[in-house]
Amino acid sequence: MLFIGVIGGGRCSPEIAQIAEAVGREIARRGAVLVCGGLGGVMEAACRGAREAGGLTVGILPGNDPAEANPYVQIPIVTGMGEMRNVIIIKSVQAVIAVDGEYGTLSEIGHALKRGLPVVGIHTWELSIAGRKDGAIMIARSAPEAVDMALSAAERGIR
Amino acid sequence: MLFIGVIGGGRCSPEIAQIAEAVGREIARRGAVLVCGGLGGVMEAACRGAREAGGLTVGILPGNDPAEANPYVQIPIVTGMGEMRNVIIIKSVQAVIAVDGEYGTLSEIGHALKRGLPVVGIHTWELSIAGRKDGAIMIARSAPEAVDMALSAAERGIR
Amino acid sequence: MLFIGVIGGGRCSPEIAQIAEAVGREIARRGAVLVCGGLGGVMEAACRGAREAGGLTVGILPGNDPAEANPYVQIPIVTGMGEMRNVIIIKSVQAVIAVDGEYGTLSEIGHALKRGLPVVGIHTWELSIAGRKDGAIMIARSAPEAVDMALSAAERGIR
Amino acid sequence: MLFIGVIGGGRCSPEIAQIAEAVGREIARRGAVLVCGGLGGVMEAACRGAREAGGLTVGILPGNDPAEANPYVQIPIVTGMGEMRNVIIIKSVQAVIAVDGEYGTLSEIGHALKRGLPVVGIHTWELSIAGRKDGAIMIARSAPEAVDMALSAAERGIR
Repeated sequence: MLFIGVIGGGRCSPEIAQIAEAVGREIARRGAVLVCGGLGGVMEAACRGAREAGGLTVGILPGNDPAEANPYVQIPIVTGMGEMRNVIIIKSVQAVIAVDGEYGTLSEIGHALKRGLPVVGIHTWELSIAGRKDGAIMIARSAPEAVDMALSAAERGIR
Repeated sequence: MLFIGVIGGGRCSPEIAQIAEAVGREIARRGAVLVCGGLGGVMEAACRGAREAGGLTVGILPGNDPAEANPYVQIPIVTGMGEMRNVIIIKSVQAVIAVDGEYGTLSEIGHALKRGLPVVGIHTWELSIAGRKDGAIMIARSAPEAVDMALSAAERGIR
Repeated sequence: MLFIGVIGGGRCSPEIAQIAEAVGREIARRGAVLVCGGLGGVMEAACRGAREAGGLTVGILPGNDPAEANPYVQIPIVTGMGEMRNVIIIKSVQAVIAVDGEYGTLSEIGHALKRGLPVVGIHTWELSIAGRKDGAIMIARSAPEAVDMALSAAERGIR
Repeated sequence: MLFIGVIGGGRCSPEIAQIAEAVGREIARRGAVLVCGGLGGVMEAACRGAREAGGLTVGILPGNDPAEANPYVQIPIVTGMGEMRNVIIIKSVQAVIAVDGEYGTLSEIGHALKRGLPVVGIHTWELSIAGRKDGAIMIARSAPEAVDMALSAAERGIR
């Protein structure tokens, strides 16, 4: 079974939510389990999409109360460890898709790249150091393309 | 959906494994999700029982590799945080069943009692302080009785 | 440099506070660094004792605010991870002294024994399993005796 | 007492080490405590600088062994939680200085900016999103300037 992470802000515009929902839907259609931070915004939209397509959703929550999960999370994991829980998401998946981006998403991208995990981005951070672009994030222009890139990379990584 | 934790040593005798397996089976039959530490011994036996009865199993792993999960874990959560992951188990369930016991189980019982979570014990630690017994652990004599006590307490706690 | 942990409830009676203060004082006199959870009760009394004797105090805090440390903590470590921070205390010391005890202390004792760390207890939990007493906790009857036992065991462990 | 974090790669060039050492030295001269990840590279160089100037150094270690600390760490905090320990560094300081940068540093910068913590960078990541530069990292051109910016920002934040 493949586990795909979706990361992104706890609040987002309707346009970004639409993309996140399509990403979740596509993950479920392709038979993978969606793992995310379990809250609102990008996380909620992705979970909603996955559930509409009959998929399984796991939410790694920052707080102490399972009730903070969005209504589309089926398996709430209650960590009580705040943003540290981002690392658990990264470790529990075979690829990650970053949609939009706040600073929390940036830290998750950093953790994922440090682990050598495939990271696909839509409308997310661009990185450079000493004036040179860092090309580690794979850029997708649509939700299906993002899921396709993530699953292909995940399958290569597993073999 | 109810989430029930099963805690116990990573190695155990065949007798204890039989009890743990019956606990897992009964949890699944009653429609609850089994959450455990995902490794061997009591954890593996409980997961095997739950899967035989068609249940869902979540393993909160201490290490960095999903491959350390026993083969009956369906949702491996990879924490990389060692024994700290015990706290996540405790926070993610509505009641916990302790089978047998090593010192790791003792620390989980401590966390659970601190949170006011129902704890049911079979063949596990007995506590006293200043010569007086502590009665917080509910003692069960069989696997079905343990699951019954745990689910009843969990349902009371949720309402 | 030796690091000694002091664990115990966040509230305690004046008698227990006096013992904890004497434990802290003795740790400082013997040149060791005191590590604790940084809050009130036993932790505060121990830090106060250590500081009176010119010692160094480290508080591993559960919350997100350094201001939750008691006024005798010199090095506040802010974890934001709740009771999981107990494990960091246990890992950062060479021996631990448990004074009195709540369920949180019980979980710390469990972690410490699991790691094979020397645990000295005053007025704390007594453990038994299947009717047999567990003798892993070394019982002290006074603060100086407790610190003496802890330092001796710590020095043996380090060699 | 002010606590200043220094973050950067576990390996670095001699030029970067020289800058990190100067940063550590300056932090100590200004009376602040240096908090870092406790390992080699930028962390070791900064600790060496701080110790040369008589400062206090705290290392929040990722592994389970205090012996993994560099020899200039006075207070090793042993977390056993891998890269999650970065969050503890960020929470325990009033400002952070990023020297050079690997992906781990990137994730720490993300955590720090999410918390609204002042972040000063030397030779580190530049961020942009949707083609626009993100100006949240304060850029310093020398070690004294970096420490000056960090301490000024930290003092403003505390008041």
